[in-house]
Amino acid sequence: MEFFKVLHKYKEARVCEINTLHGRVETPVFMPVGTQATVKIMTPEDLQLSGTSIILANTYHLYLRPGTDLIQKTGGLHKFMGWNGPILTDSGGFQVFSLQELRKITDDGVTFKSHIDGSAHFFSPVKVVEIQNILGSDIMMVLDECPPYPATHDYISDSIDRTIEWAKRSKAAHKNHNQALFGIIQGGVYEDLRERSIREMVLLDFPGYAIGGVSVGEGKELIYRAVDLCAPLLPEDKPRYLMGVGTPEDLWYAVEKGVDMFDCVFPTRIARNGGVYTPEGQIAVRNAEFREDLGPIDKTCGCYACKTFSRAYIRHLFNVHEVLGMRLTTLHNIYFMIRLMNLIKKAILENNYEAEKERFFSSYKI
Amino acid sequence: MEFFKVLHKYKEARVCEINTLHGRVETPVFMPVGTQATVKIMTPEDLQLSGTSIILANTYHLYLRPGTDLIQKTGGLHKFMGWNGPILTDSGGFQVFSLQELRKITDDGVTFKSHIDGSAHFFSPVKVVEIQNILGSDIMMVLDECPPYPATHDYISDSIDRTIEWAKRSKAAHKNHNQALFGIIQGGVYEDLRERSIREMVLLDFPGYAIGGVSVGEGKELIYRAVDLCAPLLPEDKPRYLMGVGTPEDLWYAVEKGVDMFDCVFPTRIARNGGVYTPEGQIAVRNAEFREDLGPIDKTCGCYACKTFSRAYIRHLFNVHEVLGMRLTTLHNIYFMIRLMNLIKKAILENNYEAEKERFFSSYKI
Repeated sequence: MEFFKVLHKYKEARVCEINTLHGRVETPVFMPVGTQATVKIMTPEDLQLSGTSIILANTYHLYLRPGTDLIQKTGGLHKFMGWNGPILTDSGGFQVFSLQELRKITDDGVTFKSHIDGSAHFFSPVKVVEIQNILGSDIMMVLDECPPYPATHDYISDSIDRTIEWAKRSKAAHKNHNQALFGIIQGGVYEDLRERSIREMVLLDFPGYAIGGVSVGEGKELIYRAVDLCAPLLPEDKPRYLMGVGTPEDLWYAVEKGVDMFDCVFPTRIARNGGVYTPEGQIAVRNAEFREDLGPIDKTCGCYACKTFSRAYIRHLFNVHEVLGMRLTTLHNIYFMIRLMNLIKKAILENNYEAEKERFFSSYKI
Repeated sequence: MEFFKVLHKYKEARVCEINTLHGRVETPVFMPVGTQATVKIMTPEDLQLSGTSIILANTYHLYLRPGTDLIQKTGGLHKFMGWNGPILTDSGGFQVFSLQELRKITDDGVTFKSHIDGSAHFFSPVKVVEIQNILGSDIMMVLDECPPYPATHDYISDSIDRTIEWAKRSKAAHKNHNQALFGIIQGGVYEDLRERSIREMVLLDFPGYAIGGVSVGEGKELIYRAVDLCAPLLPEDKPRYLMGVGTPEDLWYAVEKGVDMFDCVFPTRIARNGGVYTPEGQIAVRNAEFREDLGPIDKTCGCYACKTFSRAYIRHLFNVHEVLGMRLTTLHNIYFMIRLMNLIKKAILENNYEAEKERFFSSYKI
């Protein structure tokens, strides 16, 4: 079976399929984030019922806790966390390079101190591949250097050279072809560097490519500029993954430009703070204005939270610090994102993207 | 349909049924505690799947937040919290009388300050009935004075007089006969006062009686003494409810003496701290010794947590402060308690109580 196939195109937007050992993923796809081998508060069953087809986990976090040895002993990450569907693991590059004071980069890799106990560790591109081989994720990411924002043209240029060199080593070290190893495009805000990064990364012929370095302190304008620039230059016959991005407006924007895959902590993070998506936009269900609102969060939604409880009840749960509140809002927001992606997919298949997008934003206020 | 019926007796232990507007409850029964209109982290669906037949909620807490008006507007507590089965509401006496510095008792009732914002409130026996009428619980409790422990014979004696007087007023005020109002036995550690409390409370002919004042700072010995004393004196044809008690060993002890109903926060509270029940006793699954334990919490258990996850995974969740850990241990402990009660019920029905109890404790270590 082919790993990737474009099923339908409408202008630049595409509906595609990705086939993995743990199942098929239809794109465009939103991937809930399960950093520490759990999408916060959700069970695998909850995710399945929401229509989630693939989730994310994080190499850096899992390497530190519980440690690769235990996951290996368990028989891989799928078994460890009880999720039998596809998993994408981030390389941990983003996390390691966020440890500003705690890391040192060389051409061999990066030495860093654990954010938990300060213990010293070393990630090389090869080691990160080996860890992900043990995790057994279906899609793996190469270790890339994630430069800070802002950074100079010179700095980013050197960084790209290093990331390309690391990508070569990663590819050479990766032996398990049941796991697809994706390359990552960097280049910051510099058009020429994004182009060079793509040109050189594509020469390495990865089964998929991610647009990286777009959620590091950059505003929406910069994210969208990177998408505008990268998406058209990436190969048609490979999946395109926009890392760390995924509010409703971002999805509509980037899918239209030809992006296929998204992950974002935002929908689940706001949920834990009482923020929920509705067809009219995001609302803070914990606010006093919903104290007597006997309707569901979203009357068009079929999730358990919306079918069972009122805004007033969920607001009460937040008000009295009951965790069930977060559990219900998280569940709802994941449903919302999956359902939104289905709507977007349908708009592509029906060659009706612009009209559907307009219809969505006629009620949804950012 | 009769409210209460004894179906089978083995010595003093009984299997009975309680019929309510929201369904039938078989006793002996363990009632998970949903103080603030939620059994912490659980959905009504989780509870249903665990075999939970009746839950508790608390008048004091719900009166303060979200307030009786909102629950009335929603159409009652069942609708508000999405639980369609029977609900028992505690009167709030225990909570109000725990507010040592913040309350003042008179013959009319008790003035107290909210533990949340210090606002002043007044509970009379009649008001507490009226609140519970609005909540619409299936079983209501009278407002009783819960004396501190220890307290003198004189103090408790006066307290019993007041509680009896309040019980009379409660009964007179209670008009909705779809809701069963239970009396509460007090008397502290004083045999003669327990006896008097029962004698006078039973004269009022409530549809059920609770043994109160046994979980206020008293040790197991004192709990068991109150059970020994009260259970035989309570009417055969009415349910007997031991308030706030319910570890596995307590259930075996008190059911044997003729107690039918139990509620206890202990199983769910320890769960949130990583304490789980197993056939061998309680273990702290967050402990390092379970780091590589690939077996389930309890291999004899059919709950989702035990069917899906290893101790090692759940230990990891606690270790990295992921709420899913608490969610899974809570689910398991509720399953454990419901299943234990089913085992106890079967032992009664098969007239085999002592042997089954011995078998249970041959593996289960306290």
